[in-house]
Amino acid sequence: MGKKVRVVVDAMGGDNAPGEIVKGALEALKIQKDLILVFAGQRRPLEAELKKYDYDNRRVETLFAEEVIEMAEPPVAAIRKKKDSSIVAGMNMVKKGGADAFISAGSTGAVLAGGQLIVGRLKGVERPPLAPLIPTAGGASLLIDCGANVDARSSQLVQFARMGATYMKYVAGVKNPKVGLVNIGAEEEKGNALVKETMPLLKACGDIHFIGSVEARDIPYGAADVLVCEAFVGNVILKMYEGTSSMLLREVKRTLMSSTRTKMGALLIKPALKKTLKSFDASQYGGAPMLGLKGLVVKMHGSSKAVEVKNSIIQCMDFSRQDLNEKISRQFMAGTAE
Amino acid sequence: MGKKVRVVVDAMGGDNAPGEIVKGALEALKIQKDLILVFAGQRRPLEAELKKYDYDNRRVETLFAEEVIEMAEPPVAAIRKKKDSSIVAGMNMVKKGGADAFISAGSTGAVLAGGQLIVGRLKGVERPPLAPLIPTAGGASLLIDCGANVDARSSQLVQFARMGATYMKYVAGVKNPKVGLVNIGAEEEKGNALVKETMPLLKACGDIHFIGSVEARDIPYGAADVLVCEAFVGNVILKMYEGTSSMLLREVKRTLMSSTRTKMGALLIKPALKKTLKSFDASQYGGAPMLGLKGLVVKMHGSSKAVEVKNSIIQCMDFSRQDLNEKISRQFMAGTAE
Repeated sequence: MGKKVRVVVDAMGGDNAPGEIVKGALEALKIQKDLILVFAGQRRPLEAELKKYDYDNRRVETLFAEEVIEMAEPPVAAIRKKKDSSIVAGMNMVKKGGADAFISAGSTGAVLAGGQLIVGRLKGVERPPLAPLIPTAGGASLLIDCGANVDARSSQLVQFARMGATYMKYVAGVKNPKVGLVNIGAEEEKGNALVKETMPLLKACGDIHFIGSVEARDIPYGAADVLVCEAFVGNVILKMYEGTSSMLLREVKRTLMSSTRTKMGALLIKPALKKTLKSFDASQYGGAPMLGLKGLVVKMHGSSKAVEVKNSIIQCMDFSRQDLNEKISRQFMAGTAE
Repeated sequence: MGKKVRVVVDAMGGDNAPGEIVKGALEALKIQKDLILVFAGQRRPLEAELKKYDYDNRRVETLFAEEVIEMAEPPVAAIRKKKDSSIVAGMNMVKKGGADAFISAGSTGAVLAGGQLIVGRLKGVERPPLAPLIPTAGGASLLIDCGANVDARSSQLVQFARMGATYMKYVAGVKNPKVGLVNIGAEEEKGNALVKETMPLLKACGDIHFIGSVEARDIPYGAADVLVCEAFVGNVILKMYEGTSSMLLREVKRTLMSSTRTKMGALLIKPALKKTLKSFDASQYGGAPMLGLKGLVVKMHGSSKAVEVKNSIIQCMDFSRQDLNEKISRQFMAGTAE
């Protein structure tokens, strides 16, 4: 048996809470023997949901919090005011060392604000980035930053690159991960002021395998293991990827249902097509970790179902087993290779 | 018969020059009775290419220029040095009033630099944006700016919005075009510094139909007719759209060819699928116009084939017939509605 890992699960966050959240977490419990779950949320719905399952109750705890932070609330104000919410109570438990990780499918803004204000940054980390894994034709790439830090500075981008490389190396198991800077062309003189300032800094970074500019066109093909960008651009990349895929698949599906002939064709290709599309399903990777905090915070998609919850928890286990925060801490304290 | 429109065609630019360029231009000549073509390029390859076709030679002229600007050359230096290139010679003709428009599939940097330095801005225009039409599930959206002005200011974004709306109204024929500002969330407080500064300015714009923030996720569904953003973000949007589509279609095609069963299915769905995908083919709209210049400059994709060249020329005809530059000029001189 390894080290026990205690994960606080926000049972109230997301479109499918608490049903899918509880379900997914209990699925993770079954396969992760060292996992201890702490469900944070309102007593009644939480207890009602837990009653539906059989599980090892020595490894399941509850943290009741009666307030709920809504998606539309101004994040910082919500974090400050709603002390008895699942997000604030759960993060406080992580902060105090009572748990290793916190996962939520709730308000992105509130989770990001809570991560910074409650859990707090590791020493030396300027800003903690949100870094989802996006599925590509080549496997998966870590998109860092993707929501936490608009108008970032070049020194922050360099930290993102280094944290991202460490994550991909130890949690995703990629040997010598390729780090690329998102840019609008491959030539040296291309880019905006931020990119031009960051480029030489990344080139000078001895502890990462920097491959230079990556154009957005090559991202879906898996051009780099770590894609470094500031949050506005990262958000646009993630959302364009999701939007374009879902729109195209909708159009393909419509086409397949458009006549008897195409419906017959659809029957023949369906199993193979399903398999192909499954490899592009982001939920297999779990949610997006917020890196550089004194504890792990994972933001799941608002529409997360059980499978994403389960995989997010597995991600927390790997993160914790690899002592990733210890490694990131050392990176920024010594400023040397990890 | 209407007003004659004289279009200079860069016969040397792009992966398929001069073959596809000449072919497409002569196709446009056949259907556009008021079109006069001026082919700019090296005498030998150009004459050799023109010999292959039968065409109305009273409406075809040549502008020989023996230098060629390569894709990798630093744009501004190339424009300054290579006076005898098709780009410089062709743009000079537009500048001097000898032609209405210039189209090229050559170096984007050189075309953008030439547009600014040679053709020159209309009075009142701060920076001329590059504005491709991107096909969406809803039709097409004008993405403005998409390559010309990284690190733009809010006042420039407001000009993009107004020029873009005028373009969509008169050239694309969209009544009361919806203008959206690309953002990372719909809530008021979302965005980076540039977006937050631009938002109230666009709201205060009396002459456009501003709909507020547009998230990247909704762009492929046709969320707005005019998508306003600075060039770095615009470029990422365009390239993510292209990259994601081409990667997904490659994966779908691979799947269809993976077994006998799927191959049979593919045969049944192929005609319908082709038709669906055709509606997302950007070449139907021609190249990207650079707006706000004292003449029209259209940048085509480097890989353009005849159909894109033909459609780019038709776009030039519509632009010129609608006196769009006159309309844009008035917009910025008076500062009032168009």
